[in-house]
Amino acid sequence: MSAQAFRSIDPRTNRAAGPELAVHTAADVGAVAARAALAFEVYRATTPERRARFLEAIAAQLEADRAAIEEAACLESGLPAARINGELGRTTGQLRLFARTILRGDCFGVRLDRALPERVPPRPDLRLRRIAVGPVAVFGASNFPLAFSVAGGDTASALAAGCPVVVRGHPAHPRTSLLVAAAIEAAVRASGLPDGVFALISGPGTALGQALVSDPRIAAVGFTGSRAGGLALSRIAGERPVPIPVYAEMSSINPVILCPAALSARGEALADGFVASLVLGAGQFCTNPGLILAVRGPALEAFLARAGYGIAASPSSTMLTAGIHDAYAKGVEARSLVEGVQLVAAGLVGEGENQGRAALFATDAERFLAEPSLQEEVFGASALVVACADEAEMLSVLERLEGQLTATLQIDADDHGFAAQLLPVLETRCGRILCNGWPTGVEVSDAMVHGGPFPATTDGRTTSVGSAAIDRFLRPVCYQNLPASLLPAEVSDSNPYRIPRLVDGEIVPG
Amino acid sequence: MSAQAFRSIDPRTNRAAGPELAVHTAADVGAVAARAALAFEVYRATTPERRARFLEAIAAQLEADRAAIEEAACLESGLPAARINGELGRTTGQLRLFARTILRGDCFGVRLDRALPERVPPRPDLRLRRIAVGPVAVFGASNFPLAFSVAGGDTASALAAGCPVVVRGHPAHPRTSLLVAAAIEAAVRASGLPDGVFALISGPGTALGQALVSDPRIAAVGFTGSRAGGLALSRIAGERPVPIPVYAEMSSINPVILCPAALSARGEALADGFVASLVLGAGQFCTNPGLILAVRGPALEAFLARAGYGIAASPSSTMLTAGIHDAYAKGVEARSLVEGVQLVAAGLVGEGENQGRAALFATDAERFLAEPSLQEEVFGASALVVACADEAEMLSVLERLEGQLTATLQIDADDHGFAAQLLPVLETRCGRILCNGWPTGVEVSDAMVHGGPFPATTDGRTTSVGSAAIDRFLRPVCYQNLPASLLPAEVSDSNPYRIPRLVDGEIVPG
Repeated sequence: MSAQAFRSIDPRTNRAAGPELAVHTAADVGAVAARAALAFEVYRATTPERRARFLEAIAAQLEADRAAIEEAACLESGLPAARINGELGRTTGQLRLFARTILRGDCFGVRLDRALPERVPPRPDLRLRRIAVGPVAVFGASNFPLAFSVAGGDTASALAAGCPVVVRGHPAHPRTSLLVAAAIEAAVRASGLPDGVFALISGPGTALGQALVSDPRIAAVGFTGSRAGGLALSRIAGERPVPIPVYAEMSSINPVILCPAALSARGEALADGFVASLVLGAGQFCTNPGLILAVRGPALEAFLARAGYGIAASPSSTMLTAGIHDAYAKGVEARSLVEGVQLVAAGLVGEGENQGRAALFATDAERFLAEPSLQEEVFGASALVVACADEAEMLSVLERLEGQLTATLQIDADDHGFAAQLLPVLETRCGRILCNGWPTGVEVSDAMVHGGPFPATTDGRTTSVGSAAIDRFLRPVCYQNLPASLLPAEVSDSNPYRIPRLVDGEIVPG
Repeated sequence: MSAQAFRSIDPRTNRAAGPELAVHTAADVGAVAARAALAFEVYRATTPERRARFLEAIAAQLEADRAAIEEAACLESGLPAARINGELGRTTGQLRLFARTILRGDCFGVRLDRALPERVPPRPDLRLRRIAVGPVAVFGASNFPLAFSVAGGDTASALAAGCPVVVRGHPAHPRTSLLVAAAIEAAVRASGLPDGVFALISGPGTALGQALVSDPRIAAVGFTGSRAGGLALSRIAGERPVPIPVYAEMSSINPVILCPAALSARGEALADGFVASLVLGAGQFCTNPGLILAVRGPALEAFLARAGYGIAASPSSTMLTAGIHDAYAKGVEARSLVEGVQLVAAGLVGEGENQGRAALFATDAERFLAEPSLQEEVFGASALVVACADEAEMLSVLERLEGQLTATLQIDADDHGFAAQLLPVLETRCGRILCNGWPTGVEVSDAMVHGGPFPATTDGRTTSVGSAAIDRFLRPVCYQNLPASLLPAEVSDSNPYRIPRLVDGEIVPG
């Protein structure tokens, strides 16, 4: 620990608040990773039942510490109390979902092919299970100080898998991070687990995170943040003597396609729904609707007018940090200077520091396709409406989009034919397709995918939200002809954890 | 196509044989990838049933063309007819396994979370399935001209997933590659599929493969070969504007641990079994037993003596290519010059070109740990016996091994305690653990893992053999609140393909 000043900053005032907080050094990172590697040997061998109880203990401890955690998170993020309160509920719900997931056990992918001694050549006895990959580095995100941070989805899924976790706490909410870490550490102790199962690395700058990803004991990385940040960590991970996977969720503009019949029939409601989704949380969501596509005409004009009024009337909101606010303001300014892009409306000017004003831009498809910067995310409540000549041009815009977390179709019955044409294009470019909703709001459940092709993420094969996220931190091992006494429980004949398994090609419920 | 001379080479004579073969250019690669991308739109939307029939049609066509294919493969590889005959059976069996896998359908990972409109906030209807990633580049391996080549495991799993395949045929067996490609193309036509579903790229050198991996339409890469080759392709894939996953199976020395009781009780049988596994196919297997660990003493001396006799009496075998033979001869020579490493025995000198002579070396654990080059694979029938002072030293050697495809335990009842100590070390370092067998011989089944931590592969999260290999070429997509008429069949209420699914957290058989 060094003595460098490191305190909470209230983004509403840009003033430091609360006590001076300890700062880790790169040397601390090595010690923490070494403890995680030691703990791995014990922790990965715990039963799913024991890890489930541990996850539930973390959730209970977070609820016990709720008042202090929420107070710190509100102060450090500038987010309203109701939002932070909901986010804590989401965080504990997520921990409990992963507890249920490992108790169900299908995530361990157990398969048994029993010996066929009479076959020529004989088939050996083969048994597969998926085991924890090793200590995982998790990078907290600034925009979800609870649900994508110290005890967030990556931490929950890695702990569920049997991986110790080292969190690189986001410097934007250091006190929240410490309080949440203390809750997890209390659960570690109460569960009788080695203390290396969890650690928080805290302090400003990028060196700590780089040291963590470089550490030879770290086996995988979960990250939610900017494209530059995710790519930098991927590069470090790829250049290690032993490269490791990086699951970085980076940037997405989340196209919303207003199909003709829907736009004609309910353009006003769509405009209102869009504005509400755009300005929610100062637009600081990975799934913020940043791109609207529609066919040019009176219906789109009406939509734009209505949405413009909505934006113009929307109050400013405090953004998460001065850095994020500056980047947003610069991004909006840069966009307003692009030739052929019009500023349709801007939100109200607010009082206080770091006030994000919503911004709505419009352009046409030709300009959009000619100017690659218009596909870049402006993190905050900024969106671009692209007017297309016809449905064919809308399709060709979609075909040239980068990978996205989500795509949204606004459709009425008469749009189904066009939607059927769009679906194959969207499927190959995004992780989640919604109809008649808005992409903000990500359910934490079994069927959720919060992921998508590059550059939405560095690894479109997985999700960072929902129980399928545990796949990130498991890898398969096959046991051939092991004596029964040496077989791991998951692949043993007695199947004590009641795991559903694939036995000789047949699915056998647990 | 260029007119450059490109013909089969018989490794027994180093002479060219058969007709001059056409050579692709880097420009052809682009055209082929474009056709694959077009075919992807149609092929990925086919039913599992239709793809299963297509895979079976490929298998049937390979059987119909068996005589010509096997003749070419024997000539080009120098491998005996019985081996090539068995390999064709393995190849067709593999295609049929993937047909069964997609008909079973659990690989599509379907999950349904039904809407909960009464919940606060309401839960939307969420449905997840895994879809094909896109056109896949497959690199044929020299050492399995059929089972890991044009119609090999990567091709079968990618086609099963719904991905078109472009194979970069291995220049060591160009005529075999063409014949197998013709069989696949006949099956493509007979199945009424677009011809871009499959293509072979053929010719000498590394430029064709580099162009293929660089092509923006290629979405993933399967490779079996050298560490240098796999790492080079990974680098190219990682530096693309849109990086893609590379599944490279590279190098492994496959440790075999002779535990004390087993070594005492049946040292002679172990020596004979070991020699048979080592010299099989001139040792040209990824799972060749290249490292033997045992505790120093009379039992190990007896094992070494017996294995030495076996090696000294083993006839030479023709290696696959002059390049592989040269690399093997140099590798053996370099190893014999390492201080503290003794040549225990070498196989018989053979007649003809490219004759690989088995080689058995011995050293002690201290030397092994001090000399990193001793962990490198010498591709061919070369192995190193490492004498350890005691079981603790054996454990510490294992702890310092790189990632491996396999590890083998030779154990008797009295070794079970020690084996239980070894298992956690082996699990974290390899993809398959065998007891009382030999690692050569890889069953193609549901529970097989042919993979392992780096540098055994570039991606230890998957396998290249067995039905779980299909995971490589699928990625998840979530559908939120789609009208029933727009839902893909796999996630529809009616479940026409009878896929087992996870519905509201419960596993529902198909």
